[in-house]
Amino acid sequence: MTGRDVYIRSAASALPGPPVDNAALARRLGMDALWEQWVDVFIGTASRHLALDLESGEVTGTLAELAAEAGRSALAAAGTGPQEVDAVVLATATPDRLMPATVNIAADLLGIDGVRTFQLQSGCSGAVQALDLAHQLLVSGSAETVLVLGGDVIARFFDVERDLRTAAPAELVNYVLFGDAAGAAVLSTRPAPGAALLRQVFTRLVGLGREPGAVLEWFGPADRDTERPAATEDYKAIEKHVPEMTEEVLTELLDAAGWAPEDVDVLLPPQLSGRMTGLITERLALPRAEPVTCVDRVGNCGNAIVFLQLERALAGALGPGRRAVGVSIESSKWIKAGFALEGR
Amino acid sequence: MTGRDVYIRSAASALPGPPVDNAALARRLGMDALWEQWVDVFIGTASRHLALDLESGEVTGTLAELAAEAGRSALAAAGTGPQEVDAVVLATATPDRLMPATVNIAADLLGIDGVRTFQLQSGCSGAVQALDLAHQLLVSGSAETVLVLGGDVIARFFDVERDLRTAAPAELVNYVLFGDAAGAAVLSTRPAPGAALLRQVFTRLVGLGREPGAVLEWFGPADRDTERPAATEDYKAIEKHVPEMTEEVLTELLDAAGWAPEDVDVLLPPQLSGRMTGLITERLALPRAEPVTCVDRVGNCGNAIVFLQLERALAGALGPGRRAVGVSIESSKWIKAGFALEGR
Repeated sequence: MTGRDVYIRSAASALPGPPVDNAALARRLGMDALWEQWVDVFIGTASRHLALDLESGEVTGTLAELAAEAGRSALAAAGTGPQEVDAVVLATATPDRLMPATVNIAADLLGIDGVRTFQLQSGCSGAVQALDLAHQLLVSGSAETVLVLGGDVIARFFDVERDLRTAAPAELVNYVLFGDAAGAAVLSTRPAPGAALLRQVFTRLVGLGREPGAVLEWFGPADRDTERPAATEDYKAIEKHVPEMTEEVLTELLDAAGWAPEDVDVLLPPQLSGRMTGLITERLALPRAEPVTCVDRVGNCGNAIVFLQLERALAGALGPGRRAVGVSIESSKWIKAGFALEGR
Repeated sequence: MTGRDVYIRSAASALPGPPVDNAALARRLGMDALWEQWVDVFIGTASRHLALDLESGEVTGTLAELAAEAGRSALAAAGTGPQEVDAVVLATATPDRLMPATVNIAADLLGIDGVRTFQLQSGCSGAVQALDLAHQLLVSGSAETVLVLGGDVIARFFDVERDLRTAAPAELVNYVLFGDAAGAAVLSTRPAPGAALLRQVFTRLVGLGREPGAVLEWFGPADRDTERPAATEDYKAIEKHVPEMTEEVLTELLDAAGWAPEDVDVLLPPQLSGRMTGLITERLALPRAEPVTCVDRVGNCGNAIVFLQLERALAGALGPGRRAVGVSIESSKWIKAGFALEGR
C-alpha cells in the first residue's frame, strides 16, 4: 500500500425493531422445541433483528432508511457532516430495488449530493470491497472523506406462509442464520484521536471452478411461475472452506503488515453463526487477540456485520497503538477478504 | 486527474440472437400498425436484441455469458489474456442473481481467478462508474490491467402473456426502448497503438430531492402478491432533464480537459432512443464532432451501451491525436457522467 494514509474515523450501525429470539421464531414458523434447541446449540445465534412484522409477514423497512440512519450516526461520531462527504460507497446483496440504486436514495435521505456514489453488489465480503474502493478513492487523491455504507434486508426472503416442516435444510437454515442491519464508516485522509489507520485491505476472488456456496435469487415478471428456491446454502461446503480460508487470509494480512501472530491485539472474525465463529476463532493461532463478535446476538447481517464489528472495536478494544485484523469470507462464489488496522 | 496515465486498450460487445424489429415486436405483443409506426417515428429505435425466445417468453441467456463473451473479445483485441488481468469490474442494473455476483461467474467463465472483483449496481451511468473505478485502481498502482464489463438483460421484464393494449404508457415504453447486450473494455497503464488515453472520467449524483425518473423492481418471496409494476419510466422527466444535463456534462468535461468545442472530433452521446439521441446531438454546439451512436439498432442496452460506442469509436472515428467526449445520464436517481479520450 503506497501513497497517503487512510483512517477509519468512525463506525456506526442501525438495527430494525427489537431482537427476535429463537423461541419467537420457532413459534411463528410452527417449529417445535427440538428445533429451537438445535438452533441454540448448533447454530449458536440467539437472536436477530428483522425489518419484518413477523405476524403479517409484511416488510417494515428499507435498506436505504437503515443505511441512512447508520450513516448519520457515523458522520456525527466523526464530527463531520454531509457537506464534507466526497463520495458514498454502499455494499449490499439485497438492494431495495434494481434501480434506482439504494446508495442514491440513502444519499438523498442524508442530504448528500453532487458527489460520486458507488453501489457494490456482493455477499458478506462486500463491506471489505467497499472499504477497499473507498481506500482507492482516498489514496488516488480523488476524495478526502468517504462515507462507506453496508447492509442487508433479508426480510423479503421470509415467507411466513410457508410450512417449514417440509423445507429442505439448505433452505431452512436461512431462516435462522441471518438478520437485517446496516452499518457505516467514515474514512478520511485526516487522522484524529480514536481513529484507526487502515494499514491493509484486500479482497480476492478464489471461485475458479468452484460451485457457489450460497445463492440468492431475484424474480422478475418472466419468473413468476419459477420453481427455483429463492435462497439456498451449501452449509457443508461453508463449514469446510471458511475456517481454512480464514487462516489463509490471516497469514497473508500478517505478512503484508509485517506483524507476528502475537502482535495482534484484536480480531474481527467472520460472522457466520455464533457457533461457527466460535470454532474459527479458537482455531486461529493468535495468542493475545481479543475477538470482537456480534453474530450471536444479531445474526449474520451480510454487508453490515463488518461495520458492527468496527463500531465495537473503535469504542473498546482498539485503543492507541493496538493492532487489529479483520477477516471476511464470501461463500457465494468464494471471496477472501481482510484488513489490518492500527489504533490512533 | 493526477498520477499515471490510463489507456483504453480495446472494447468489444456481445449481442444475443438476431435483431428483433418493431414489426416482430408489434406482432408478438398484439399491437397494431399504428403503434409500430409510433415506435419507428417517436422512439426512433428500429431494432434490438433480446435474450428471450419471443414465442415462449423464455429467457435464453444470462448476463454472465454475454459479459464473458464480450470480455473474451476485448482481451483478444488488446492482445492480452486472463492471466494478465489484475481486477474485474462489472456494471449492471440486472444481475443474473443477487448472489453470487454476476462478475464472479463471468470471471469463472473467463478463467480469471485470484484477483479483486467489483460489481456495480447502477442504471445507464454504471459503465462510466466502472471506468472510473478501474481508473482509480490503475492510478493508485493497485493494478496494471483491468477488465471492465457492463451489460443488462432486460428480457426478464418481458411478460409476453400481458395484454399491453391496456398497459400504461410508462410501462409500455419499456418494451420498445431497451435491448439486451454486454460490453467490455481493457484498461491499462501501458499505452499501445490504437488505444485511447482516458483524459477525464467523472460521475456525479444530482438526485437530491428529485423523484426517480426510472424504477426497476426485483421481487422476493414476500413480494409474490405485490401489485407494484416491475418497471416504470417517467419519460417526460427524462425528455426534459437529459438534454440539459448532457450540455452541463459537456461543459464540465471541456473545462477539465482544457478543450474548446471545436477541438472535439468524436461525440459519444447518451443513448436513450434513436430519436432522443438525435435531438440531443443536434442541440450540442460541437461544430466538428462526429457522433457515434448505436441505440437506433440495438436499443438502450443500459450498462453495455458505452462499450458498444467505444468499440465503434476505437475501430473508426478515434484515430491518433483525435479527441472524443462521451456523456451518459442516469435518470433513475439522476447521475451525470462523462469521459474524455485522446486517440493514440
